[in-house]
Amino acid sequence: MTTPLDLAIRNATVATSRDVTQMDIGIAGGRIVQLGRVGPAAEDVDARGLIVTPGGVDTHCHLDQVEPGMGNGAETLATGGRSALAGGTTSAVSFLGQIPDHSLTEVLQESLRRGEASRIDYSFHQIINDATPEVMAEVPQIIERGIRSLKAFLTYDAARLNDAEFLEVLEAARRGGAMVAVHCENYHAIGWLTKKLLADGRTGPKYHAWSRPKVVEREATYRAICLAELTGTPIQVFHVSCAEVAEEIARAQARGVKVWGETCPQYLVLSEDDMDRPGQEGAGFMCSPAPRSRADQEGMWDMIRRGVIDVVSSDHSAFNLTGKNGKDAAGPEASFAEIPNGVPGVGARMPIVFSEGVSKGRITLDHFVRLTAANPAKLYGLAPQKGDIAIGADADLVLWDAGRKVTLDNAVMQHAVDYTPYAGLEVTGWPVATYLRGTRAMQDGEVLAPEGAGRFLPRGRYKLAEPSSDVPNGFTAAEIG
Amino acid sequence: MTTPLDLAIRNATVATSRDVTQMDIGIAGGRIVQLGRVGPAAEDVDARGLIVTPGGVDTHCHLDQVEPGMGNGAETLATGGRSALAGGTTSAVSFLGQIPDHSLTEVLQESLRRGEASRIDYSFHQIINDATPEVMAEVPQIIERGIRSLKAFLTYDAARLNDAEFLEVLEAARRGGAMVAVHCENYHAIGWLTKKLLADGRTGPKYHAWSRPKVVEREATYRAICLAELTGTPIQVFHVSCAEVAEEIARAQARGVKVWGETCPQYLVLSEDDMDRPGQEGAGFMCSPAPRSRADQEGMWDMIRRGVIDVVSSDHSAFNLTGKNGKDAAGPEASFAEIPNGVPGVGARMPIVFSEGVSKGRITLDHFVRLTAANPAKLYGLAPQKGDIAIGADADLVLWDAGRKVTLDNAVMQHAVDYTPYAGLEVTGWPVATYLRGTRAMQDGEVLAPEGAGRFLPRGRYKLAEPSSDVPNGFTAAEIG
Amino acid sequence: MTTPLDLAIRNATVATSRDVTQMDIGIAGGRIVQLGRVGPAAEDVDARGLIVTPGGVDTHCHLDQVEPGMGNGAETLATGGRSALAGGTTSAVSFLGQIPDHSLTEVLQESLRRGEASRIDYSFHQIINDATPEVMAEVPQIIERGIRSLKAFLTYDAARLNDAEFLEVLEAARRGGAMVAVHCENYHAIGWLTKKLLADGRTGPKYHAWSRPKVVEREATYRAICLAELTGTPIQVFHVSCAEVAEEIARAQARGVKVWGETCPQYLVLSEDDMDRPGQEGAGFMCSPAPRSRADQEGMWDMIRRGVIDVVSSDHSAFNLTGKNGKDAAGPEASFAEIPNGVPGVGARMPIVFSEGVSKGRITLDHFVRLTAANPAKLYGLAPQKGDIAIGADADLVLWDAGRKVTLDNAVMQHAVDYTPYAGLEVTGWPVATYLRGTRAMQDGEVLAPEGAGRFLPRGRYKLAEPSSDVPNGFTAAEIG
Amino acid sequence: MTTPLDLAIRNATVATSRDVTQMDIGIAGGRIVQLGRVGPAAEDVDARGLIVTPGGVDTHCHLDQVEPGMGNGAETLATGGRSALAGGTTSAVSFLGQIPDHSLTEVLQESLRRGEASRIDYSFHQIINDATPEVMAEVPQIIERGIRSLKAFLTYDAARLNDAEFLEVLEAARRGGAMVAVHCENYHAIGWLTKKLLADGRTGPKYHAWSRPKVVEREATYRAICLAELTGTPIQVFHVSCAEVAEEIARAQARGVKVWGETCPQYLVLSEDDMDRPGQEGAGFMCSPAPRSRADQEGMWDMIRRGVIDVVSSDHSAFNLTGKNGKDAAGPEASFAEIPNGVPGVGARMPIVFSEGVSKGRITLDHFVRLTAANPAKLYGLAPQKGDIAIGADADLVLWDAGRKVTLDNAVMQHAVDYTPYAGLEVTGWPVATYLRGTRAMQDGEVLAPEGAGRFLPRGRYKLAEPSSDVPNGFTAAEIG
Repeated sequence: MTTPLDLAIRNATVATSRDVTQMDIGIAGGRIVQLGRVGPAAEDVDARGLIVTPGGVDTHCHLDQVEPGMGNGAETLATGGRSALAGGTTSAVSFLGQIPDHSLTEVLQESLRRGEASRIDYSFHQIINDATPEVMAEVPQIIERGIRSLKAFLTYDAARLNDAEFLEVLEAARRGGAMVAVHCENYHAIGWLTKKLLADGRTGPKYHAWSRPKVVEREATYRAICLAELTGTPIQVFHVSCAEVAEEIARAQARGVKVWGETCPQYLVLSEDDMDRPGQEGAGFMCSPAPRSRADQEGMWDMIRRGVIDVVSSDHSAFNLTGKNGKDAAGPEASFAEIPNGVPGVGARMPIVFSEGVSKGRITLDHFVRLTAANPAKLYGLAPQKGDIAIGADADLVLWDAGRKVTLDNAVMQHAVDYTPYAGLEVTGWPVATYLRGTRAMQDGEVLAPEGAGRFLPRGRYKLAEPSSDVPNGFTAAEIG
Repeated sequence: MTTPLDLAIRNATVATSRDVTQMDIGIAGGRIVQLGRVGPAAEDVDARGLIVTPGGVDTHCHLDQVEPGMGNGAETLATGGRSALAGGTTSAVSFLGQIPDHSLTEVLQESLRRGEASRIDYSFHQIINDATPEVMAEVPQIIERGIRSLKAFLTYDAARLNDAEFLEVLEAARRGGAMVAVHCENYHAIGWLTKKLLADGRTGPKYHAWSRPKVVEREATYRAICLAELTGTPIQVFHVSCAEVAEEIARAQARGVKVWGETCPQYLVLSEDDMDRPGQEGAGFMCSPAPRSRADQEGMWDMIRRGVIDVVSSDHSAFNLTGKNGKDAAGPEASFAEIPNGVPGVGARMPIVFSEGVSKGRITLDHFVRLTAANPAKLYGLAPQKGDIAIGADADLVLWDAGRKVTLDNAVMQHAVDYTPYAGLEVTGWPVATYLRGTRAMQDGEVLAPEGAGRFLPRGRYKLAEPSSDVPNGFTAAEIG
Repeated sequence: MTTPLDLAIRNATVATSRDVTQMDIGIAGGRIVQLGRVGPAAEDVDARGLIVTPGGVDTHCHLDQVEPGMGNGAETLATGGRSALAGGTTSAVSFLGQIPDHSLTEVLQESLRRGEASRIDYSFHQIINDATPEVMAEVPQIIERGIRSLKAFLTYDAARLNDAEFLEVLEAARRGGAMVAVHCENYHAIGWLTKKLLADGRTGPKYHAWSRPKVVEREATYRAICLAELTGTPIQVFHVSCAEVAEEIARAQARGVKVWGETCPQYLVLSEDDMDRPGQEGAGFMCSPAPRSRADQEGMWDMIRRGVIDVVSSDHSAFNLTGKNGKDAAGPEASFAEIPNGVPGVGARMPIVFSEGVSKGRITLDHFVRLTAANPAKLYGLAPQKGDIAIGADADLVLWDAGRKVTLDNAVMQHAVDYTPYAGLEVTGWPVATYLRGTRAMQDGEVLAPEGAGRFLPRGRYKLAEPSSDVPNGFTAAEIG
Repeated sequence: MTTPLDLAIRNATVATSRDVTQMDIGIAGGRIVQLGRVGPAAEDVDARGLIVTPGGVDTHCHLDQVEPGMGNGAETLATGGRSALAGGTTSAVSFLGQIPDHSLTEVLQESLRRGEASRIDYSFHQIINDATPEVMAEVPQIIERGIRSLKAFLTYDAARLNDAEFLEVLEAARRGGAMVAVHCENYHAIGWLTKKLLADGRTGPKYHAWSRPKVVEREATYRAICLAELTGTPIQVFHVSCAEVAEEIARAQARGVKVWGETCPQYLVLSEDDMDRPGQEGAGFMCSPAPRSRADQEGMWDMIRRGVIDVVSSDHSAFNLTGKNGKDAAGPEASFAEIPNGVPGVGARMPIVFSEGVSKGRITLDHFVRLTAANPAKLYGLAPQKGDIAIGADADLVLWDAGRKVTLDNAVMQHAVDYTPYAGLEVTGWPVATYLRGTRAMQDGEVLAPEGAGRFLPRGRYKLAEPSSDVPNGFTAAEIG
């Protein structure tokens, strides 16, 4: 106690995952070591009039993802991390792609190497898109390296697993003590609808939504839940777009299934109308699942209030809208089926949820903290290090000016992608400073954290869920072999 | 009115799909032409003390199904028809297989040729197990020949459709004004579980049930419903085995989806315990979905009473239990995965439902008529010709002695298959005579109808259901192309 | 068979509760004795081009109801019967009020005396509004007289039962083998809201709807169901106004409770907007529950299609709109709380359901027959004598011109009440002739049946439902005392 | 920061409402002022090896409740407070009875006077059992005194409100910014069943359960929710006994109603079998609702895990089992209807939930804190002062030896009531010290807090819930008058 603190944040209104309190925060060695009465510190920050929240934890973003040929997309952990810090996010979980002709370990190594330039702390989900015996044999080692979550796609030509492969992934996760995150849309139905739409000359961006109606998301969600019930593996359904899909999650939760639901800002403020803008402008709003109607946005807020949806991530994707070729590589003549799916949002996420949620009175401040930091951290094994303001936690902190109004545009976002789908949206409440492990990483929009400021976050073993008993004689998938 | 009737059934207690009435039935030209006061007839039958019901309509049985190589199974429309008549069934819907190197039309021709020896009236569902453009191009003509229902399997190596193929089938049916009947189990999950069970040395018949727990049926049922919602096609879920699956059907019905559910006697009186009999004896009870627990049987009766399950068919399958090779071709050393799935029941169905349903007080007589004759006839376009006792309907009639007790064994069944899974079951209530289009076809267990007594039943166009609107802007799958 | 028939209806399209068939109908002694080929008759009616349905059975109408002081309302079984016949209804179940200082038997005698002038066949529900021991002691004898249903009100000052009294009524019904029909609205909540509205100066007819929102109907419906579960008594919920209420009935049905739901034309074609017409005109649309919104009307049709609501009755009430005193006795200055609740509809019911249901394609013809005749007859013990076209049934028949368009007004209705709330509604499909027990009772709008043409219909014992088991140790209310 | 702390709890495993952390707790002026690194203190407590939780908050106990005639029951805030501290509870919400011939204010004064001898901090719910205009006129002042919750009984002769009176209470609460707690059982149904049971000679304690089956609790719960929907008032359903009742709460929560559910230890470890013990011994287990079956206990744990039930209180009641007169005043010959309902439990609550919940692995430690302290404190306006370990909160702390096994008996309980229904139950996990506002109040079973150690807790205004919109034209009960 005689050693002074490194940093003290004083006089703040501190929002944690459970309450909002006036207190000081004392930081040493990058961690929160004192709350309440806080002793002398090498540096004092007076946060009077500001709200302090934990740094955002974005457990779903595609940053520096190694691509086929070991290439990379438009957004790195350095550039995406810059945007993250600007928007109040200090940790991200990106993805390890499964790359043809490369072992999972090689991709992990390359990803860790790239991570050395990250501006934020980071982890990865391991994507499995080809569940061969060789690949699955490698999975336990990957998990042991702290990659405590696998990602499965039920759609996309290059990525989708059939149900047997998905079961392999679920079973490997359960055995390794890992979660599975799932993209739930019906691959074949989308393909079938797309073929019909293209044959009918319906090629514009708006037909993206037509090619994947709610029912294909609802079906795949129900299926993913059933297969997870079979193996007894906990899963998170990624990017839930509407209340009907969330309702299937709610039903499963009520019968005791360990399933959680995530949504993203694009389902809270964008809609199918955005894809109907003139020319290829609509391409900038294309993501999957597709944004639904305005009424569906309110349905999602209801599901957030009910607790069925308990995480808001960004699903930040690294596709440029303009340049010589339309959205990323697709070109101005591209049909919706050729345009890559995904929108950037790692920087926009926290301000949008703060503004649409807290400032508009839809949720409380502590609920905001749970949605954007505490819940994703708990679910993915980053807690108690990340996600909350508590003794022992990393001093990842955001200072908010709750009354500041900012109109979003791409410059504000500071990411490498050349546009934001949220341009023109005015938000109320803005992060004026971000601290990463006790170091000031952003101040008044200026990102101070250099490349390499971020660290890899190995994650701990998931507490095993009880296996399902929906098999004769108490047999469960877990019992065989 | 001056011409006498061909036949009069007098003094009977007549059970129709809606009521039970004392009346006479007047028949001419094979049809019911007079009810109530019935005039003079060439032949009079005094049915005092007996109950008269419509002849059973079994819309799910594998009789004379053309097999690969144009071969055939153990049961023909002649032998299966004999069993049917013995058990009070006068019409059956069998299947047109899709045979490699043969057009659908060829198989239909061959099936119609074989049908010439049928002892009962018959129709077919067209199985689609390889939805190639060539095959799908042929479908409209098949439907126009009166084959107003397609059959899709979501499991079985040789038969299963992926979801895009299933959508093709659904869409072709909708356009042609046909129903789709679906076998709902998750192909990949069953394969995955089977592999694990076999690897673990769990090979006996009882592990058949372990390889396909309820959740794989529930999943596939939900999926089939969703895809049918997408195209707006009416479907019937075949052989529902438990209340959890039926509940998904009930939910869909409540939101207006045109989906119906069928069950079979094996889910009302057999259970997983039967598959656990010594040696290969359990093979005789193997069918898919697998029989569940005793408690599940009561769950199915509840769903019948609620009206969620409104048809009981037999799913009569033509596999011999004994002979030199165990169940059909599988052999005594065969693992559960090699033993063909299916049990015979075209003759047992009506007495079992009468006994377990009516005699045990679970359902009323008119409900029995709806389950076994009127509903299947309506659903599959055989009404008003078949399925009820009404003016203009075919004079397919069964005279029941409601008090007679019979212990089932294979001789009683009179089919070609060498066993019945219901051996030893005592039923109360027995058909003492069966009439097919006004001609006595069975009397006191003796089948009088010769080969060729039966006729092909071309079926009318299904009244189109409203397409689903779960697509943006009111677009539906039906609108494209 | 040698005796000729009294009457033959020939060449008709006959709609029964299960099908639509071309056939002739042979009638003798007032009953249907022959269907199909029909022999010579004293009188032949050629119904070519017309649809024949069973005469309507209206199990909820206030006709000649004995009022306090043994007085009577505006509508008798003679006048209301005239309207009924004009609209295709041949049987009605009215009510026996419980009159202060008069025994139930006295009121029954008086009601039967008045019934001698009825133009249609009739029965009664016994209202219990004061469940004293003396009254309850009389109930078994009343039931034995063929009054196989009791009516309970959960609201209205003069009529409402508290829950203990309602349980007495339920228990008495169960013991006597009778149904209970229930008016479900929360008495106290309506009173409380009414007091507040009046205190606030909100007195116009439209505030009638404000005084009894959906939730008060939903609550009371749930409560009635629970109390019926406790005693194991079958109940029908009268006049369900919206899908939310019907959904509670559906949930109870799904768990096996014997509960049915009725609605009325006022919930299918009237709305709260009608009560907002200028001055006291809105009073003409006041009934309880109150008509809801236009969207709620479609919700009711959905519930009809699902089978949750399976009877449409009129709840015909005998209040005059005009005259010297505003709606009945209330006067032009009356607040909504003083204006009697109820609208006339015994004549309008069948044409409205035919037009809005069948002609508009919402339901099939046989569904129309079930809703308006077969189901109410079965539920209230009038079947098989009433409600369907079948051998042995009374020859109550309606001949419809399906294409005729008629705009409703009070003259068309032919009742004694001085208005119809359906004035101005154009219906497609109109009854051109009505037969009561084989006698022509209406032709082309002219009612031919004289006073006294109708008969009292004693009803048989209700088949006892299984008592609920929701009591410890298998104890049920039925077991005590 | 230069002033030393009054007390430091060091080296503890600290369980808060959201997490479990190793940290020190620094206390000054009765409050938690420092967490984490904690400076020098006047007194140091080494809690190594112990778990520290917040002091229990029991928002439902009858302590020193003023009775008719201004008398009092067996348990005072002094004796009950002693038991509370022994069991790890530091705050209680007792009740202000409505006493004939005394104003609410008088009773409040008397209660505050009695509270001066309390050993624990305390507040009150205001019972309304006679909602006269005079009484309701007094309510706003009572609420302003910090009595931010009203209590309504829907059963019990002396206490029950009819629905209009209950609406008055709901409306008064909403206007005053107060919650309403409700005892939900159907008064009339219980009375009716009781009369029948007594008439049938079924008088023993076990018939208490027969007189109030689940359905009467389920009905009243649904009704209370509906009426709260009508006024838009937040409510808590007291002492939910079974999953069926909780399911109705879950449904209402899903549609956005502000309703919460409480249960009590008696529904987690007692059952109907206990009431069937010989003689009057069963009387010791009589409470209302009645304990259900063993299976129902597990159902309640499921509902706790789902979050539908989020508070466990004791409903401590002050009736002696023995003495010269049987349970309290009832006497050895008393029928179940004469024996008062209620069991003591203010001291047993925390150890039972710890043992059955945490030690048996049903819930986590932080869930335990939420159920027993944080949630009740939040719901009833005691947070952030009470219910959690956080900066600024009162230093109400309990030190637990998680491994200690104790067999409960009445001496251990230390209350004034002469028995505990939990005698013989062995619990794992025991409070070894309790601190009230930083002062040691119990150590190793010895209660150190003197009479008068406790303080009255005035509570803040409830944040108003949105009123229901289930009224035509957007009208809500809130809008009138």
